[in-house]
Amino acid sequence: MPALEDVLAKIDANQPAALERLFNLLRIRSVSTDPAFKDDCRKAGQWLVDELSALGFEASLRPTAGHPMVVAKAKSGRSGVPHVLFYGHYDVQPADPLDLWETDPFAPRLADAPQGQRIVARGSADDKGQLMTFVEACRAFKESGGLPCDVTILFEGEEETGSPSLPAFLEANKAELAADVMLVCDTSMWDRATPMITTMLRGLALEEVIIKAASRDLHSGLFGGPAMNPIRVLSRIIAGIHDDQGRITLPGFYDGVSELPEEVAAQWREIPFDPKAFLGDVGLSVPAGEADRSVLEMVWSRPTCDVNGIIGGYTGTGSKTVLPAQASAKFSFRLVGAQDPEKVLESFRAYVRSKLPADCRAEFMNHGASPALQLPFSSEALSRARRALQQEWNKEVILGGGGGSIPIVGEVKRHLGMDALMIGFGLDDDRIHSPNEKYELSSFHKGARSWARVLDGLAD
Amino acid sequence: MPALEDVLAKIDANQPAALERLFNLLRIRSVSTDPAFKDDCRKAGQWLVDELSALGFEASLRPTAGHPMVVAKAKSGRSGVPHVLFYGHYDVQPADPLDLWETDPFAPRLADAPQGQRIVARGSADDKGQLMTFVEACRAFKESGGLPCDVTILFEGEEETGSPSLPAFLEANKAELAADVMLVCDTSMWDRATPMITTMLRGLALEEVIIKAASRDLHSGLFGGPAMNPIRVLSRIIAGIHDDQGRITLPGFYDGVSELPEEVAAQWREIPFDPKAFLGDVGLSVPAGEADRSVLEMVWSRPTCDVNGIIGGYTGTGSKTVLPAQASAKFSFRLVGAQDPEKVLESFRAYVRSKLPADCRAEFMNHGASPALQLPFSSEALSRARRALQQEWNKEVILGGGGGSIPIVGEVKRHLGMDALMIGFGLDDDRIHSPNEKYELSSFHKGARSWARVLDGLAD
Repeated sequence: MPALEDVLAKIDANQPAALERLFNLLRIRSVSTDPAFKDDCRKAGQWLVDELSALGFEASLRPTAGHPMVVAKAKSGRSGVPHVLFYGHYDVQPADPLDLWETDPFAPRLADAPQGQRIVARGSADDKGQLMTFVEACRAFKESGGLPCDVTILFEGEEETGSPSLPAFLEANKAELAADVMLVCDTSMWDRATPMITTMLRGLALEEVIIKAASRDLHSGLFGGPAMNPIRVLSRIIAGIHDDQGRITLPGFYDGVSELPEEVAAQWREIPFDPKAFLGDVGLSVPAGEADRSVLEMVWSRPTCDVNGIIGGYTGTGSKTVLPAQASAKFSFRLVGAQDPEKVLESFRAYVRSKLPADCRAEFMNHGASPALQLPFSSEALSRARRALQQEWNKEVILGGGGGSIPIVGEVKRHLGMDALMIGFGLDDDRIHSPNEKYELSSFHKGARSWARVLDGLAD
Repeated sequence: MPALEDVLAKIDANQPAALERLFNLLRIRSVSTDPAFKDDCRKAGQWLVDELSALGFEASLRPTAGHPMVVAKAKSGRSGVPHVLFYGHYDVQPADPLDLWETDPFAPRLADAPQGQRIVARGSADDKGQLMTFVEACRAFKESGGLPCDVTILFEGEEETGSPSLPAFLEANKAELAADVMLVCDTSMWDRATPMITTMLRGLALEEVIIKAASRDLHSGLFGGPAMNPIRVLSRIIAGIHDDQGRITLPGFYDGVSELPEEVAAQWREIPFDPKAFLGDVGLSVPAGEADRSVLEMVWSRPTCDVNGIIGGYTGTGSKTVLPAQASAKFSFRLVGAQDPEKVLESFRAYVRSKLPADCRAEFMNHGASPALQLPFSSEALSRARRALQQEWNKEVILGGGGGSIPIVGEVKRHLGMDALMIGFGLDDDRIHSPNEKYELSSFHKGARSWARVLDGLAD
């Protein structure tokens, strides 16, 4: 097993080349939700297979009903060492609205900022930059004599669309993917100086609703008045989901939502967190969630319903006096604790139907559903990883919650019975899913160093 | 003055050529609301100037701040005859959604239908087919010896966008456009056998609202809960505009709305009108307007508020877990009686602002406003036109209301003090503003014959 100092020095020396490699990956337009980018997704997967093969991994692209998986395996050559399964995703969010990007989202560049350089590109932080921190740590070990643990890597290409192919793939490849612990790099640090291990994750249920009224678009002069407008129906549905206290009104929605254990609640109260600054950063000032909850609870441990998109009628320049035949909206539910995604969706669909006038009908399209996840605070791997991160960052590690869902964690728990250590180096201002997404150069560099320390610590 | 029989025979003989001329006009993509079609609008105007010049009119294209006007003048050569101002519009609605058209909206064709042939194209009924009925009537008079009245023609290119340049143009050209009565061909028949003269028109106020919340799009995992979603705000605004009885809740909205005179109400009760069939034709069954009003009142004499378009967030294929920074909707108000468009818009804007959370702001864009119009039932021109139409169609003429607004009528009343006879040959199933718009061949042919009879009747 190589000396940790040698591995860290190798990572430092490799930085310029590592950045070039990441840029190559960022140039590939692997937008998973849009069928137009199907070939690009495959190309990103193949690029990773080639990189890992070159490092001595036994790597291959595995077909699914959707975008392919990357699976790569390498042994430490030592017995009695832990076996880790590392997970990341090579797909990215759509880049639109394109006109808000300062430069081409798929032409990565380094930009100067007061706190250091940053990498600007779609996917720089979510998740290509993050997954490459682990690949670069593995490279440094390989170049220094070998890996300290047995390593299996799984990269998927459908994380941004709710990971539809993941459950079947895990079930079919259970034996091959079995390991002692999963490592996931798709989360954030507490701040640029403070590492965080994410111990709870909200689940996610995605449902699109199309409200249909007349059999065709109508002239609002001829039919305005007697003809029901589906935009009006949809608006009433959306308006009725929250009460004036920000609570969600769907029957049974809060079933399975429990209060935080007091020790965790106490830790969160101690965290230096300024809700005003958190909202102020994005131009907001009034928390919109449940009136009796802290903002940290709202994003880490409380469920939500949001509308991610709405469209109906004429949306071009100027006006058009049309009564549209239909209107649609994309809803998402962030789930916590033991909320059952299917029950939430059933309650939602029943609510939508209850709000339909006799003339209208609703069509539903599901875009994925995964429950929330809570990791045990007592695991040995967690203590070792905490220690390793503390050494790299010289700062107490925060055990936090995650607002976004990472389907892999729940699916691996369900199919492989494995817990996950979620360690990531993103920052809250990385603009993931937004124009001008960036990843700090320090996240990329110290992220790789952190993984080297974690692998070393797990094998110790 | 030529014998009416000769003029009618000429119209019959000219039919094949008249249809070819109309097709040429329909091929021009004169969509006024979209700046991309600016040149096409000009081209349509110029085409009409050329046609009218060839008929011996003194015709020219007149610039405005928007699309140009066509003005054409011809004298009867006789003294003591009435002078009519004929109005139509050469602009058309956008053709989208394109995928619902059976054929190219700008490649006009004749289609067979059980009740006869029809002309299918964007603008066939609204308003190119209609305005050409008058041009063809003029042609037949010219070819038979001369016009029976002095005729001024005004074609505009901004009717579908609320006629923004019209008021200033009328004011600046008052003297030149002065006439005894205006003739407008932009309305419908009662049914395919029954002519109608429209005596009241709803006004129209168009207002777009943009609700802005965060300074950028947000990840719903990171910010879902505490961050206000502008789609939710917009939905609450839309949902609150109507009460459960279909009445509009904006303060002062019904100021200036009066009840119908009993004689008109009685005439309307006698009209053979089946609300179930009217709504059933477009796949609806439940009148959505004020619960205590008939469907005929809802479209002819009652005001409305509708949403013609809404958009916000991600609207592509699949899902995107985004909280959008903004959402917008296009509202339209149909106005009646003495409702003041400006007061309605002021009340609406105040209502929108009253529904904004502290974090959000609203931006407003006005797309035009015109009041409703009511014509006197006692005019001499009205009786002559009724008689002329009755002779052509051999059926009692219905004096109806119009649900859609025709800005010219109000503006001409205001600037030139002239009343308008609104006579049109469209049918309710013409799909104006919708895919597969059509105009009956019989409307086109008998429309031209009707105008010949009306001109002859007015001059008699």
